[in-house]
Amino acid sequence: MRALDIVIKKRNGRSLSEGEIAFIVRGYVDGSIPEYQISAFLMAVFFQGMTADETGFLTREMIASGETIDLSSLKGPFVDKHSTGGVGDKVSLILAPLAAACGLQVPMMSGRSLGHTGGTLDKLESIPGFRTDLSPKRFAEIIAACGFAMTGQSADVVPADRKLYALRDVTGTVESVPLITSSILSKKFAEGADALVFDVKTGPGAFMKTTDDARRLARSLVDTGESLGKKIVAVLTRMDVPLGSKVGNFLEVEESLALLGAPEAVAAVPADRRSDDLLNVTVRLTAWMLVAGGVVSDVDEGVRRCRTALEDGSAWKAMERNIREQGGRLDELYRNLGTLRAPVKDTIRADRNGVVGGINAYSVGMGGVYLGVGRGKADDTVRPDVGFELLVKPGDSVKSGDPLIHVWGHDDTAVRQAVETVAAGISLEDSVDGVDWSAESMVVEELSAL
Amino acid sequence: MRALDIVIKKRNGRSLSEGEIAFIVRGYVDGSIPEYQISAFLMAVFFQGMTADETGFLTREMIASGETIDLSSLKGPFVDKHSTGGVGDKVSLILAPLAAACGLQVPMMSGRSLGHTGGTLDKLESIPGFRTDLSPKRFAEIIAACGFAMTGQSADVVPADRKLYALRDVTGTVESVPLITSSILSKKFAEGADALVFDVKTGPGAFMKTTDDARRLARSLVDTGESLGKKIVAVLTRMDVPLGSKVGNFLEVEESLALLGAPEAVAAVPADRRSDDLLNVTVRLTAWMLVAGGVVSDVDEGVRRCRTALEDGSAWKAMERNIREQGGRLDELYRNLGTLRAPVKDTIRADRNGVVGGINAYSVGMGGVYLGVGRGKADDTVRPDVGFELLVKPGDSVKSGDPLIHVWGHDDTAVRQAVETVAAGISLEDSVDGVDWSAESMVVEELSAL
Repeated sequence: MRALDIVIKKRNGRSLSEGEIAFIVRGYVDGSIPEYQISAFLMAVFFQGMTADETGFLTREMIASGETIDLSSLKGPFVDKHSTGGVGDKVSLILAPLAAACGLQVPMMSGRSLGHTGGTLDKLESIPGFRTDLSPKRFAEIIAACGFAMTGQSADVVPADRKLYALRDVTGTVESVPLITSSILSKKFAEGADALVFDVKTGPGAFMKTTDDARRLARSLVDTGESLGKKIVAVLTRMDVPLGSKVGNFLEVEESLALLGAPEAVAAVPADRRSDDLLNVTVRLTAWMLVAGGVVSDVDEGVRRCRTALEDGSAWKAMERNIREQGGRLDELYRNLGTLRAPVKDTIRADRNGVVGGINAYSVGMGGVYLGVGRGKADDTVRPDVGFELLVKPGDSVKSGDPLIHVWGHDDTAVRQAVETVAAGISLEDSVDGVDWSAESMVVEELSAL
Repeated sequence: MRALDIVIKKRNGRSLSEGEIAFIVRGYVDGSIPEYQISAFLMAVFFQGMTADETGFLTREMIASGETIDLSSLKGPFVDKHSTGGVGDKVSLILAPLAAACGLQVPMMSGRSLGHTGGTLDKLESIPGFRTDLSPKRFAEIIAACGFAMTGQSADVVPADRKLYALRDVTGTVESVPLITSSILSKKFAEGADALVFDVKTGPGAFMKTTDDARRLARSLVDTGESLGKKIVAVLTRMDVPLGSKVGNFLEVEESLALLGAPEAVAAVPADRRSDDLLNVTVRLTAWMLVAGGVVSDVDEGVRRCRTALEDGSAWKAMERNIREQGGRLDELYRNLGTLRAPVKDTIRADRNGVVGGINAYSVGMGGVYLGVGRGKADDTVRPDVGFELLVKPGDSVKSGDPLIHVWGHDDTAVRQAVETVAAGISLEDSVDGVDWSAESMVVEELSAL
């Protein structure tokens, strides 16, 4: 077998065998195939695509390149969720304890912010003392203790993906549906998930700007998962406006705790209708996890179970226990609610009477990079106490001079840049029709292989 | 400027500026852009193509990567021909002295055999003493002396092409029309040509198997040449059957000398109607060179001039002088005519009565690799005294047992493999219509920018 022949076969649009894909991945990891052939291969995949079976072979081979998390000491079912990334996307912080409270085991490995999208690890680390560098052993122990654990990815898991992603990043081959699919699935399956629910975001604040692109990725995730014999649900959700009312690392923890019903958060930073979109999306995704895990028989039953677990306090109890287990200091966390704010504050105000038409999620995400919500490049540092509070959502009537968004940052320049960036993405109209934050409106489409 | 952005721009199907193409070529040659980005770029070009202007920028930048041949001491016009490669394609050996005899200066740099196609340098080196490693100074002197010179490419000419071609060869990006175009044009213009005639072969024995593919390359050569302000003619010619009656290094020299009218060759190895296709194609291509060089006003006049130069002995005189200038030993050459044959001979015979329908040029080319006519891989060696003589051409009637093709080689195994390979490409039919070796039949299409 020669790498060149495999490159040409894919270039010519033919499907590769399991052996050919294994040859490429192993040869790249062990250094026997040079990077210039791998990058030509990746570009050929960019143009010619891969079938679900090929993507499955690639996923399996990438998983085999490293260690997998052994959760055999636990009973399962292990169900996780993955989001393609958005602005104000704090879904994981609510969904994981909620799913655990409903009887699932959630082995969650998350990433960090890059570009305009946030990262769950950065948000969690804004909780004083919270550790996201769990050993595999401690990861399993915490899942056993509270039904879920949240950690960063170990370098030992899917090294092929790390190496391939680094090459894709410098060769213009990131935006390939089968390569994205295998990257996501390999990490998620290596961490021990039996079933997965994907939140494929679509809109200006998402990586997939159009519904067609988002649907293509969702279809690839579902079909590839199916070809690997796994249960997969992909839910396309809107990412035109930031999710919920807050964007920022600790700001998003506050909103999450309020929605989980943490008494201290409900008292200090209560949630209101501005969080409806976030709550509806989160509940829908969690309900699908319950279906995928076999806890409930349909998604409507799942939604009811979630609502109950939020109302009866069991979801918050799971979260509270997790925070303790992962090293978080609850008393300090409670003291920070509503008070942990960077010193420079500004407020974006309406420049006319009207109705809020849109608050561009991408603009808010990019504005956040100036403040330290997210990272412009991988080695930037983020801050816990910066970000935005949306006082209005699309559909709200405002008068000229009304406050629209609070902005917190550490220096005047950053705050000014953030304000300018975010303000440019706000539109005020004479009238706006059909604004709706229900699950029916937030969920564009649902695909499943169960 | 970043290489990655240029890769992505091309990947997305956009046209690159002259500066962007220069950045890529210079960065690759000086090592500042890594090979993995260049190979991704080449694969993106494979899929997205390049405009004639982009291909022109690439060609110009490749020429600028090295030295160009200085022919300013000579008067010109400098016109060369390039063939995309065929089987029995000894056109250059006849065309160069013929064009010189008609008043052109032909600075010809040729290549070696690879795969099923022959190489002019290998053929020339079967002439005892003939040197193909001329210095630029000697090259110019020989052109001054006899109107043409034939040499191999210097490593100093178009180093970017050498480097890029080596990478294309291992990354599945050889078969790209703009990359082929810039590779060919950069070398030809660096050698000092003012105008070029291309013999773009099409058919089973050509690199471009279909007329559509050949036409695409021809169009790219003409359009790119035009964007560079050069005179270009591209002639699509048939390569279904080997050209002429002989395939092999010295065998092809013999046929060429006979057609040039060398008295010793006419006596020892006379040409006959089996060489008509070769002669008609050669005269047509040479006539176009005369048009491109401004020696005649139209191609019909060019054809007449060529016929005269063949008949009056002036073409042969130019060749005889060139052979002496390039170190060839004429007496030894003459002694070899009809006698320089490898020791193992076999003959392919008709296995039925019928009419020859086809003699597949690709089969003959591949059969020749076993014998040492051509190279299976770049470091194989070729032999002067091996090859094939076609005793029949399509349209000829034969009886069962009649000899069709003589085969000469150095060992039984190679000859047996060659015989099997070539025989598999011969078809005998009950009747065959419309076989015609005229220029009208051999030339599929002519494109020009004059």
